[in-house]
Amino acid sequence: MAEALRVGIAGLGTVGASVARVLRDKGAELTRQCGREIVVTAVSARDRSRDRGVDLSGAQWFDDPIELAEKADIDVFIELIGGDEGAARACVRAALDAGRHVVTANKALLAKHGVALAEVAEKKGVLLNYEAAVAGGIPVIKTMREAMAGNSVNRVFGILNGTCNYILTRMEAEGLTFEACLADAQRLGYAEADPTFDIEGNDTAHKLAILTSLAFGSKIAADDIYLEGISNITQADIRAAAELGYRIKLLGVAQRTESGIEQRVHPTMVPTASVIAQVHGVTNAVAIETDILGELLLSGPGAGGNATASAVVGDIADIAKSRPGFQHGPVFGRPAKELKPYKKAQMRSHAGGYFIRLTVHDRIGVFAAIAKRMADNDISLESIVQHANGTEGGIAQKTVILVTHETTEAAVRKAVDGVTKDGHLTDKPQVIRIERAG
Amino acid sequence: MAEALRVGIAGLGTVGASVARVLRDKGAELTRQCGREIVVTAVSARDRSRDRGVDLSGAQWFDDPIELAEKADIDVFIELIGGDEGAARACVRAALDAGRHVVTANKALLAKHGVALAEVAEKKGVLLNYEAAVAGGIPVIKTMREAMAGNSVNRVFGILNGTCNYILTRMEAEGLTFEACLADAQRLGYAEADPTFDIEGNDTAHKLAILTSLAFGSKIAADDIYLEGISNITQADIRAAAELGYRIKLLGVAQRTESGIEQRVHPTMVPTASVIAQVHGVTNAVAIETDILGELLLSGPGAGGNATASAVVGDIADIAKSRPGFQHGPVFGRPAKELKPYKKAQMRSHAGGYFIRLTVHDRIGVFAAIAKRMADNDISLESIVQHANGTEGGIAQKTVILVTHETTEAAVRKAVDGVTKDGHLTDKPQVIRIERAG
Repeated sequence: MAEALRVGIAGLGTVGASVARVLRDKGAELTRQCGREIVVTAVSARDRSRDRGVDLSGAQWFDDPIELAEKADIDVFIELIGGDEGAARACVRAALDAGRHVVTANKALLAKHGVALAEVAEKKGVLLNYEAAVAGGIPVIKTMREAMAGNSVNRVFGILNGTCNYILTRMEAEGLTFEACLADAQRLGYAEADPTFDIEGNDTAHKLAILTSLAFGSKIAADDIYLEGISNITQADIRAAAELGYRIKLLGVAQRTESGIEQRVHPTMVPTASVIAQVHGVTNAVAIETDILGELLLSGPGAGGNATASAVVGDIADIAKSRPGFQHGPVFGRPAKELKPYKKAQMRSHAGGYFIRLTVHDRIGVFAAIAKRMADNDISLESIVQHANGTEGGIAQKTVILVTHETTEAAVRKAVDGVTKDGHLTDKPQVIRIERAG
Repeated sequence: MAEALRVGIAGLGTVGASVARVLRDKGAELTRQCGREIVVTAVSARDRSRDRGVDLSGAQWFDDPIELAEKADIDVFIELIGGDEGAARACVRAALDAGRHVVTANKALLAKHGVALAEVAEKKGVLLNYEAAVAGGIPVIKTMREAMAGNSVNRVFGILNGTCNYILTRMEAEGLTFEACLADAQRLGYAEADPTFDIEGNDTAHKLAILTSLAFGSKIAADDIYLEGISNITQADIRAAAELGYRIKLLGVAQRTESGIEQRVHPTMVPTASVIAQVHGVTNAVAIETDILGELLLSGPGAGGNATASAVVGDIADIAKSRPGFQHGPVFGRPAKELKPYKKAQMRSHAGGYFIRLTVHDRIGVFAAIAKRMADNDISLESIVQHANGTEGGIAQKTVILVTHETTEAAVRKAVDGVTKDGHLTDKPQVIRIERAG
């Protein structure tokens, strides 16, 4: 049997401890699968004394993860510290420079420095594996990087943030407000004390940026993403969506268009009868559409210590099965030096159906004015729903909901701006994109 | 750059021709991804003159696929002939014996001879890849063999036959009979002239047997599968299922139980709100439940030339990225020699919910007799629906539908036998298992 694969883990939080436990508990089976033992020989964490449910006293302890990366007797460096700068970035870079394979779950680091790190890995001939960085336990990186070789991707989209999906699922199922569901998510540990990063779509954007690079062979462009979170989704939107046969999900979408690649994160109406509409709670899902394979959908746990550890262990096992002299596939599907510059599509040209919810004065001529604004912008309407809201603050109001046929973002914005200028609105207009979904 | 990978294709039907076209059309991108060219240097097919939409005149032609496997200048042998004996088996064996990597889409061959062939491959140190053999374009083999390293599977189940799912989807959507939908499936080329193999579940069983081996590290046991097809599913069942919040799917299920491994293929009630219930038409889906990752679901095209070719090309690309001296992971997850004997679970002990549809005489005391038979067998009922059917052939009939809480197969069979003996039935009883599904 080949020599044992020596692993060093930097960061022993929930995921790190879980990885160490799985490597111990499933040692015999992993050895059978990989043809060699996998042994944790070094670790780095702030607190040496904490009980993590696994005995790591046999491992070399380092206070400094960079020292671990450079000096420990290891073949693979596992980065589970987090953050896009500081220790995480420095130790991953140090490990690659030292010619060690790296496994990381750090989406923020990859979204910002992934291409530069991939170049170092490829120059050094080592692997940089990051299955856990996108959609937790779902093997979407392996699927796109390996299984889909030869396919050209047209669109990749998904539910990439469990916190948002949990909130939207409960809002729909129980009729609760956004604020109430967010508070529960925080209480249950699904959302951070400062939830902005999740609910405003930034977390989804990091993951989407990585998928975009894999899908289209372009450099990672995490800052070039249209971003809209879920904090302005109301019960009125959710109820109206249900009435029209849709469900609201926060999707990350990357799509090939004539003008370039479109990357967007926003609340989206998906048909209730679609597979992705049945993805509830903290579950994640990714759909990939290609020219040869067609449409593939993967769903599963997107977060949590165990699901994330499962992806990390899968990455380690792939390295264990490889041998010195084995030349690996490139980190982002094609060699980092050959990744194309990201060419951003005109977002305003995005074509698709739209859901428009308008709260307006309940008076004669309002609907005619709205209809004219739509017609003036060549917008054809698929359905129209109108409810009288009664009187609020002395003003008689009604809600008008429009679902458009395929049109452009620019046309919709122009039409809604027109309605706003007409002075009929009593509240902010709501515009939600509709996404075709298998 | 490394030397080109030389590929020989045996069988140039729909899939074979599609593989050749993809390797040509996507040559540049595949070379970038794999770090070397992939070239079709040899082919074998009955008819040399047929137009397959791709120029193969540069390749060496062989009349005999076994000769191709043994004598052609190739690194990888692609078997796309089909069948579990004859030429397919002989040429795969010959290619492995000659120390060549093999890629095959042949589920029947693997279900019958997979373990023996894996032993040869592992002895010779070559790869035997077979992503296309199960669920077409869905990367379920790669997911279970690589991504889930370290996970112990509790259950794997799925929609593995597009023909059956197409028929059940249309029966539900359009209220058509089984016979009418089958005829349409045949007309559209989704079903063979003799459809028995698909509709009686044999095709699903072959695929399930391969997944079972990967899931539980046991030898393939395709003959030890409980088999029940969809030909006795009626509109009455489909309507009753819908009324109770279920949809009927033909599932292959492999599950770890206390008494061994349970393998079964049968029509199954799945909750309408589950993800797998939204898998329509010829689409396939596989759900895998493990101790660490949790539940993962993959859905996508399960058949067709292009989707199958996509899986074959992915397998070839994996080989192209490897290099001589690279020691590969075992074919069925653990070394073939270490696969455990298959230990069959007691099928009659299968525990779960059941749907029971009884057509009975519309007379006093019948329902009481049914209820007593259920109670006598400790079966607790979740719901009961009763319809008067009117009079047929001079006999007043009604339909009684029972949904049980978790009970055993044995108890249900005994209770239904009792009802039959009581002489109340006017038609064959229908029993359909209910499966928990995420």
